Formats: sequence, C-alpha cells, structure tokens
Amino acid sequence: MLTIILAESELEIMPGELVNHPLIVSFAHQRRKQPYRILLDSNYHHVAMKDLVDGRRRGRPDITHLFLLTALESIANKKGQLKIIIHTRHDDVIYVNPETRIMRNYDRFVGLIEQLFEKKIIRSQEQTLLELKQKVPLNKVIEELKADKIIAFSEEGKATNLNKYLNDLKKHKEKNIVCIVGGFPSGKFNCDMESIAADIISIYPEMLVAWAVASEILVNYEITYL
Amino acid sequence: MLTIILAESELEIMPGELVNHPLIVSFAHQRRKQPYRILLDSNYHHVAMKDLVDGRRRGRPDITHLFLLTALESIANKKGQLKIIIHTRHDDVIYVNPETRIMRNYDRFVGLIEQLFEKKIIRSQEQTLLELKQKVPLNKVIEELKADKIIAFSEEGKATNLNKYLNDLKKHKEKNIVCIVGGFPSGKFNCDMESIAADIISIYPEMLVAWAVASEILVNYEITYL
Repeated sequence: MLTIILAESELEIMPGELVNHPLIVSFAHQRRKQPYRILLDSNYHHVAMKDLVDGRRRGRPDITHLFLLTALESIANKKGQLKIIIHTRHDDVIYVNPETRIMRNYDRFVGLIEQLFEKKIIRSQEQTLLELKQKVPLNKVIEELKADKIIAFSEEGKATNLNKYLNDLKKHKEKNIVCIVGGFPSGKFNCDMESIAADIISIYPEMLVAWAVASEILVNYEITYL
Repeated sequence: MLTIILAESELEIMPGELVNHPLIVSFAHQRRKQPYRILLDSNYHHVAMKDLVDGRRRGRPDITHLFLLTALESIANKKGQLKIIIHTRHDDVIYVNPETRIMRNYDRFVGLIEQLFEKKIIRSQEQTLLELKQKVPLNKVIEELKADKIIAFSEEGKATNLNKYLNDLKKHKEKNIVCIVGGFPSGKFNCDMESIAADIISIYPEMLVAWAVASEILVNYEITYL
C-alpha cells in the first residue's frame, strides 16, 4: 500500500485577521457566503493578503485540487493501492475516500471544501467521501499508518533515483510506504521533517509542483509494486 | 525526444449553431465578449448544447488545461525532452513552447485560449509561447515530426506494459517517440487511428483521463530514456 500525504498544504478557511477586510467582505458577498466560511485563495485575495503572516505562501487550494485530480485518477488508486491524505498548515487533516470523484471545476471544488470545513464530513449515499479531523499534527497522522518506510520529498533532500530507491525498498520487503509531498507553492516544510521521515529525497535539482511529484511517486510505485 | 499529442481534443470556439442561443448570448455578455469569441465549455453551456451534434462529448477545455499542467510541469519537459502539441476536433493545432507557464486558474486559461483563437499566436517578449495553425489534420502534424515510432493510447488497444514496451523501443534504438492521447472525455478516436499509429496500446483495462495517461507516458519515458 502506498500513502501520499500532501503535507502543510495551504488550504484554510479565511483567517480572522481578514474577515472584516473590505475586499474579502465584498468577495464573500458576491459568493453569497459569510466571510468566515470561505476558503482563503491567493488567486482572488492576494491584495488583502499582503499584510498576512506568510501571505505569499498561503491560500493555495489550487495545489490541493491539482494534487487530488492527479492522485485519484491514477492507476495505483484505481487498483485500490493508494491512500490519500491532505494535511494543512493548521493541522487540519482530510481523509480522502479513494472512490471520491473530485470535480474538475475549481470553483465547485472550493465550494466542496468550504462545505467540508463547515460539516467536517462529506457523504454520498452510504459512503464517507471526505472527512476532516482538526488539530492532528503530521507526526500523529503518520503514526496511525504503521508504515514500513516514511519518505519526504524536498528539493533540498538527497538526490535520489526514485526507481532504484523503490526497488531497494521492495527487496527489503518494505511494502507499506508513506510519501510526504509539500502542499505549498515554494519554500521549505515548517515542521522538523528529519524527525518524521526516514529519508528526505530530491528527485530533481529544481522545484517541482506537488502534482508532478505525486505523478513521479505514483507511476514509479506502480512499476515497482503493482 | 518525446512528443505527446493531445488528439481530437474538445477545444473549440462557440459553434455557429449556438451563437444566437439565449443562454450563450447571456453568458458571453456577462464575460463582456462576443458569443463567437468564447470557448465552448460544457461546464457552463451544457443546457444550450443538448441539441448540438456530439454535444455530450464537446466543450471540454478543462481536459486540455489539466493535460498541459501535467505535461509542462513534468521532469521530461524541464529536461528539454518534450514536445507538446494540442490537436482539436476541427483540426486546429496548437504548438506549445515548452517554456510556457500555463495559468493554474481555469478561467484565465480559457481567456488565453480565446485570445489564441483570435490572434493565432501568443507571444511573451521575444518568444512565441503558443501558435495556432488551422486545418492541419492529425496525420500531417505527425508527418512533420519524423518519428521513429508512433503510439496511440486507447482503452481498446492491445494490453501493454508500458515500461517493457519502451525498453524494447530503446533496445531497437527508437528514440524519437510520438504518443497520441485522446483529448475527449470518453468514447473512441474519430479518425482511423490504425492508419496513423504503428501500435495502439492500452495501459489499463478501464478508461483513464488524458492527464493520467500523460503522467504514465512521461514518467515511464523518463525512467527509460533520461
């Protein structure tokens, strides 16, 4: 089994500092929602975000959206060999049912995640599709997975050929693999990743977007294990 | 070199039959554009499209968008080993400069493609980013590429392990590979693919979305050739 965790992803409800900002109030009004019920989105709110702590990094639901569209549509997922978890900067954790069909339309995706933050669960008939648990730090999320190997992906990690690396894991009968991919647009993990992951690896000398890293993990995993 | 052609993609300017449809007129008005200058988009126009020929298949700029976000951000592209071509149902062909940074925001992407259909070229400083050539059938596009091997991907093709398949090509010193992926939501290629591609292969027994097929091609190509 492969688990991919999109860690420290920039997915959050409008922070308190901005709910009274005129641009946010007007944007929320247009969407007929309360300002404290909409997602922070730098694509629309960047002007209001300029004084926000970490403002140039935050508000990126698009990264989570593209990551989910990549992971859920992968062969590994269709074969039932993938767990997908979204962890956010505020330690909100979203458990994603592999059968979830995420809408390709971004605005509808944003609406879905807003509903999730409000209700904590999205169900379809008998199934839970998305479940939100709050205040679960990344190390707790990982502990529950009882992984054979925990690997973080970072531009600053050790240069590694992923294909050879996974083949070595397979030889050592390590099957339950957890891969941690950053869900932020640039920069480093905020947490102490060295205390969490067994290896921090770099698969390309420059920055890659989260969904490109996810593709590399998924296809290499399929080739090695499936 | 790897070329991926997104073939028969459902990307087109509003067809003549719909430019006077009240829903389209009103949608175009909201966007402050002329109806004959907007992209057909089933996400917004599905009600107006119900009597359109092939209406359930057409108007899917989202597929091209997600395909481009996958291909352009791949390691193969960053290493300068990828050509990306979009071919549409009306034989419009878009040549994509590998250095193009496609906007993640879907509405802005749609605006860009509308501009491309109007001006036929999108430039940034000294570079051509996107170029549109009209009335170029798929076989002509492929002829110009002087490929060693032309492979089409289809659910109905021959079940194939892509990793082994590419390794065999490499052994036979076939390096200039053209992969054809369908840019439509479901169904078959309209053209006679058997007369175009040397092999029609299936990498999974069920339908895969275009960007998942692209991921498989890109990562397998990187492992085999780069």
